[in-house]
Amino acid sequence: MTHAQAMLDTHPRQVSNSSDLSEILHDLEECSATCRLCADACLAEDMVADLRRCIRLNLDCAAVCAATAEILGRQNEGDPRVTQSVVEACITACEACAEECERHAEMHEHCRICAETCRRCADACRRAISLVQ
Amino acid sequence: MTHAQAMLDTHPRQVSNSSDLSEILHDLEECSATCRLCADACLAEDMVADLRRCIRLNLDCAAVCAATAEILGRQNEGDPRVTQSVVEACITACEACAEECERHAEMHEHCRICAETCRRCADACRRAISLVQ
Amino acid sequence: MTHAQAMLDTHPRQVSNSSDLSEILHDLEECSATCRLCADACLAEDMVADLRRCIRLNLDCAAVCAATAEILGRQNEGDPRVTQSVVEACITACEACAEECERHAEMHEHCRICAETCRRCADACRRAISLVQ
Amino acid sequence: MTHAQAMLDTHPRQVSNSSDLSEILHDLEECSATCRLCADACLAEDMVADLRRCIRLNLDCAAVCAATAEILGRQNEGDPRVTQSVVEACITACEACAEECERHAEMHEHCRICAETCRRCADACRRAISLVQ
Repeated sequence: MTHAQAMLDTHPRQVSNSSDLSEILHDLEECSATCRLCADACLAEDMVADLRRCIRLNLDCAAVCAATAEILGRQNEGDPRVTQSVVEACITACEACAEECERHAEMHEHCRICAETCRRCADACRRAISLVQ
Repeated sequence: MTHAQAMLDTHPRQVSNSSDLSEILHDLEECSATCRLCADACLAEDMVADLRRCIRLNLDCAAVCAATAEILGRQNEGDPRVTQSVVEACITACEACAEECERHAEMHEHCRICAETCRRCADACRRAISLVQ
Repeated sequence: MTHAQAMLDTHPRQVSNSSDLSEILHDLEECSATCRLCADACLAEDMVADLRRCIRLNLDCAAVCAATAEILGRQNEGDPRVTQSVVEACITACEACAEECERHAEMHEHCRICAETCRRCADACRRAISLVQ
Repeated sequence: MTHAQAMLDTHPRQVSNSSDLSEILHDLEECSATCRLCADACLAEDMVADLRRCIRLNLDCAAVCAATAEILGRQNEGDPRVTQSVVEACITACEACAEECERHAEMHEHCRICAETCRRCADACRRAISLVQ
């Protein structure tokens, strides 16, 4: 059991599907961290000039995943339209970052791992949408 | 001239509409800061138990505005679909937070100011969408 | 092997102690997420008025842990004084949050878990200082 | 009067020095935004390979300034040791970023503006320390 699930299970508001939700939060946080590490690794590459778009999308995706994890984790009554639109933006950011990272995946192993992580996170976000509704 | 405009005007990539963009960035950053201050003010109110939804939407809106400002500010080539979906999520978050704050605006001046700031930020985001396309 | 370690091991700059560092990054990210969830759980409690200081320190600790993880993760040449001072601030934030959460640990299981997580994160930060130097 | 001051003046907890504090918050938020824009401008430069350290310190400084603004803005009772240690880390981050940006200030106007902004923010943080105690 992850820490997030233990926290959700002791929340005064009943969290249904705490197991599903905590897995999604885990994927979001892992994707945010991985994208930041990929941006830093790209910046250190000799061919950094060819990786500008990748660095930019890495940083965009990291920011959106962090905000999405923060918002999805809250159990006090919010607005489902907000949560859903943020999750949708997150899917778009993850898919765009994955696409770009895949173009460098053969040359840079960090981009290959990052692309995979973004695809998994986009899938997690799709499952999140059904939890929100 | 704001700092943001001075920075955009010295960016190696030509930023058209640096004046419009820097105003939008300003509104986003002001909204993010105002929402965090409103959450903290609500938490300090005697009637905090009635302000849970407001605090939650304040924090959601603050997170989305911060991510949106970060992403809109970048001029290295990104993906317009990402920027647009984040800006759309930001409009949704600002409108939802404004709606909730307006319900407490007569009783709490900080909610009244925050509601106004969120409405202005939602308008700024609508102008941002035309810049992205 | 965590994702962070896989990313550090494929970084163009040789990361010595990638295993130690990735564990520290994991503890920081877990603490940041746990503190945000504890703030949200406290906000939902009937006795929220008695938990203001806890919520505030939760949010402070979450912000510092997130910044520290971001900074410690970067391998491009930075400034050890910056990294060290941020890690020291993180130890202070984790200890202060743990102390406060411990005061509510018997009544609120989420505070008990959060206190433990903060103590572990403070220990991780102490190990980080020896990596920085 | 800035938005931050209007918010602090309507906070249920009396904020002494709301004028000083809101100026400090403004400098912190401006510095965070300016550092992110400088990182993006550096990344777009032909000589990006020579600006890695600058980009890294820009991003570090942006993260610490954002966390510091968030923490300093809160008026619910926190822990002065936390606030002070974060402000001290912020001074260190601002000075280190200013130093590095100054090395590129003649060649890159965005680095010159960013260095100045970081120096002003470090000064604001020094004034903040006297407010905390």
